Amino acid sequence: MKRWDWTEYDMDLGLSGRSAILMASSRGLGRACAESVAREGVDVVINGRTAADVHRACDDLGGAYGITATPVVGDATTTAVHDALLEACPEPDIVLLNSEGPPPTAFGDVDAASWNDALQHTMVSPLLFVQRVIDGMQKRQFGRIVAISSAMVKSPNPLMSLSHGPRLGLTGVLKGLSKTAVAHNVTINTILPERFDTGRQEQMARLVMQFRGVTYEEARAEQLASINAGRLGRPEEFGDTFAFVCSAQAGFMSGQAIQLDGGSYDGLF
Amino acid sequence: MKRWDWTEYDMDLGLSGRSAILMASSRGLGRACAESVAREGVDVVINGRTAADVHRACDDLGGAYGITATPVVGDATTTAVHDALLEACPEPDIVLLNSEGPPPTAFGDVDAASWNDALQHTMVSPLLFVQRVIDGMQKRQFGRIVAISSAMVKSPNPLMSLSHGPRLGLTGVLKGLSKTAVAHNVTINTILPERFDTGRQEQMARLVMQFRGVTYEEARAEQLASINAGRLGRPEEFGDTFAFVCSAQAGFMSGQAIQLDGGSYDGLF
Amino acid sequence: MKRWDWTEYDMDLGLSGRSAILMASSRGLGRACAESVAREGVDVVINGRTAADVHRACDDLGGAYGITATPVVGDATTTAVHDALLEACPEPDIVLLNSEGPPPTAFGDVDAASWNDALQHTMVSPLLFVQRVIDGMQKRQFGRIVAISSAMVKSPNPLMSLSHGPRLGLTGVLKGLSKTAVAHNVTINTILPERFDTGRQEQMARLVMQFRGVTYEEARAEQLASINAGRLGRPEEFGDTFAFVCSAQAGFMSGQAIQLDGGSYDGLF
Amino acid sequence: MKRWDWTEYDMDLGLSGRSAILMASSRGLGRACAESVAREGVDVVINGRTAADVHRACDDLGGAYGITATPVVGDATTTAVHDALLEACPEPDIVLLNSEGPPPTAFGDVDAASWNDALQHTMVSPLLFVQRVIDGMQKRQFGRIVAISSAMVKSPNPLMSLSHGPRLGLTGVLKGLSKTAVAHNVTINTILPERFDTGRQEQMARLVMQFRGVTYEEARAEQLASINAGRLGRPEEFGDTFAFVCSAQAGFMSGQAIQLDGGSYDGLF
Repeated sequence: MKRWDWTEYDMDLGLSGRSAILMASSRGLGRACAESVAREGVDVVINGRTAADVHRACDDLGGAYGITATPVVGDATTTAVHDALLEACPEPDIVLLNSEGPPPTAFGDVDAASWNDALQHTMVSPLLFVQRVIDGMQKRQFGRIVAISSAMVKSPNPLMSLSHGPRLGLTGVLKGLSKTAVAHNVTINTILPERFDTGRQEQMARLVMQFRGVTYEEARAEQLASINAGRLGRPEEFGDTFAFVCSAQAGFMSGQAIQLDGGSYDGLF
Repeated sequence: MKRWDWTEYDMDLGLSGRSAILMASSRGLGRACAESVAREGVDVVINGRTAADVHRACDDLGGAYGITATPVVGDATTTAVHDALLEACPEPDIVLLNSEGPPPTAFGDVDAASWNDALQHTMVSPLLFVQRVIDGMQKRQFGRIVAISSAMVKSPNPLMSLSHGPRLGLTGVLKGLSKTAVAHNVTINTILPERFDTGRQEQMARLVMQFRGVTYEEARAEQLASINAGRLGRPEEFGDTFAFVCSAQAGFMSGQAIQLDGGSYDGLF
Repeated sequence: MKRWDWTEYDMDLGLSGRSAILMASSRGLGRACAESVAREGVDVVINGRTAADVHRACDDLGGAYGITATPVVGDATTTAVHDALLEACPEPDIVLLNSEGPPPTAFGDVDAASWNDALQHTMVSPLLFVQRVIDGMQKRQFGRIVAISSAMVKSPNPLMSLSHGPRLGLTGVLKGLSKTAVAHNVTINTILPERFDTGRQEQMARLVMQFRGVTYEEARAEQLASINAGRLGRPEEFGDTFAFVCSAQAGFMSGQAIQLDGGSYDGLF
Repeated sequence: MKRWDWTEYDMDLGLSGRSAILMASSRGLGRACAESVAREGVDVVINGRTAADVHRACDDLGGAYGITATPVVGDATTTAVHDALLEACPEPDIVLLNSEGPPPTAFGDVDAASWNDALQHTMVSPLLFVQRVIDGMQKRQFGRIVAISSAMVKSPNPLMSLSHGPRLGLTGVLKGLSKTAVAHNVTINTILPERFDTGRQEQMARLVMQFRGVTYEEARAEQLASINAGRLGRPEEFGDTFAFVCSAQAGFMSGQAIQLDGGSYDGLF
């Protein structure tokens, strides 16, 4: 058995020449994931709803790493964008499932339409996309499917039902699929972030300002205090974890829910 | 502090005079739950889609235990039946969330309509019903909400995505709600059965016969072999567990997912 | 299949005439467990290190419920007391594993002797006792082994390593054993309490007074605030849960870690 | 915020110039861990009980990667070897906790001496070593403590009580410690392997031959069949996962139990 080609590099992730479809990857955690695999020589399909962001990300990544970065502008929870993503990359080796989280909502205020909308966006749509790629991955004997979820799937917060409810459903279905896919070197894992330094936390801080009448600085300080590490995560920490989970040498790791939460989860497992 | 009134009975669950709405309770596990609380002096609303079954259950339970058993015929995943249930019992102390499970389906064959249907029936509809009762329970300082889920939520099977996906979503949302409701003596728990001796297992055995060409006896034998206890669960074992979880003295137990699976779950927690 | 004899009582746990060995049962949670099964007609062996407490408990339970209550005075983590317990009840149907918890200790202050002592008392000793009873239970086709553990096994606190470390080891070994024992109607479960209103919490409050310079009332208020239910658990709530887990109709529930923590655990499972 | 220096390499783990103490690292998984961090420019202390193995590993790693590899021969569960490890590397940045697993033993055959021995080797000894290094790591604001455990801590097997019991205790104590250490950029994680292609599995296959009368080939085939991936793990897959968990960019991941088991764990979390 040959070891990875470590002599020329530091850790070679064995991804050079692979291709990735990354949903919602023009900003935030998705963007960081794209960068980490682009750096490893992966051709990427960048997606987002704002054309300027998508094109800028493609220019940046293509320029920095010499890989092909293809823009697909639009909402990745729609069939039309699924079609476009697969047209841009018909045989992806890597798929990042990612979508924007819903705003906090008291349980009593969630109506049927909100449930259906959240479930469609966060659970059904990514599963329909997985349906379209998993057989090909299995035939080609390589696949890495990773979902960005939330630490709340393991510690549900009653104000975030619209987030953790659908995300848990997704996590469970992916776990089931992982049991058979791994025999074909297709791994399926979930990463559970909690409080990374992206626009999402700025947005959450502004919501807290409104609802609780604190200052922006106080709201940000509360965010830090809620994390055992005493700081927010850095997007590139997330991106590199994603890259490792996608690596050739991570083929024995599947069905995992990996928490990136600054050591904050209270539970043993 | 006064202890329960143990002197006159065996274990008094402190439920006499309480009222319960039990979805899908004319047969199977739901029926067993209804019987166990009726025996404790709880007035019950019995629900099911087959009028004869519902009426027979009401007659049986009312006759045996001298409680009031009110029939509500219809599909408990609809708003109309929610209305009827609450008309029959506007201030329930106990609510059993229960619905029929979907048939096994290969992941590749699940289309958007099937997802939406399963999510509506198994997750959204019960949550909308919880919305309608939880505030009242909290005000009255007593509530017991129990969902019948499936052991598969903790050990997902790729053939049962339509079951464990929505059920997990439900479990997560209920867990979030449990964190605040318990301060008002409203507990929310889930029971996770695996292979009870009801019509469901007969139906599953017939599906296995069809798909795998084995005899009915072989299919049933496989069911037994899959359970560490070497037998199927008895519906009354389920019912009495439900009754205990609903008891006055179970007010300190909330947010739990209690497995009734003959000791079959492989994981530690 | 015959249902339990519900007609004459409320819930009959099917334990009349059974026998139980209950370690550390002269006070606190152990005492509550003894009372709940004595009420169901179970002959009990009461154990504790203070003779007066043990004898008083025996008098009280024997008097109230007409069962046989046999005193065994001594430290239940010793072989000599194991011998005495089994002499008093050679074929127990029910065994409660229970022992006093260690004081809070900073990790840096735990030396090898403290580890070995805690492991011996909390893990090795109960396992050696289980070895002596499990085969007989399996042959007699009835057994209920329950360990009182701590909610901290699922949410470890760095000040309580001497408690949750050994308790987790015990929980894991019992879980392994449960997988085969259940085929013989021997169930093995763990109950995880958090903050019950016993002498233990008074003792913890006094430690907090010393270490943090707060008043006793403040220390007690902090205990309440740490529980989502906003109150401490009542020992009889614990005892009745124990009784239910020991019941005839709980034979399909095994390998479970049941939290009695006022809905405080943050994690999903 | 500066990103990692990705331009010159593939993924730079930011470990160049760091130092590591690796227990039981002359062969098997420990050796693979040593190689993966040596390749990243980490000076390593290699330990094992067989002098020739230890010296060969040092020669190989020093030669291949130009780092300093210091041999410490002896049983890493003893205080004398702890002293020697810390003399060789007084301020380690990385510590690998690792020890040989015990042979399978039926629960009924485990006596007090076996428990104490297993607990001393697998739980107490590594914790005493952690005591000696964790304060320094916290002061220096960098530390990576990783324990090699076993997938069985999450799915206990009754024949392996001597393995999973002590390992669970260790896992729990480390989880507790992780909650405060992470604020000082000291992470503590556990990796749970199941069936890697090392001498351990050959040894297990020989035990199965003896006990069950199968051929060596049959015993090996059973090993493969027990893994969802249909193959054994490769030690370098383990080593690179270890290296990633030790990386600079993994500072937000702590308190995790990462399964490397070919996707075999049945449970959701």
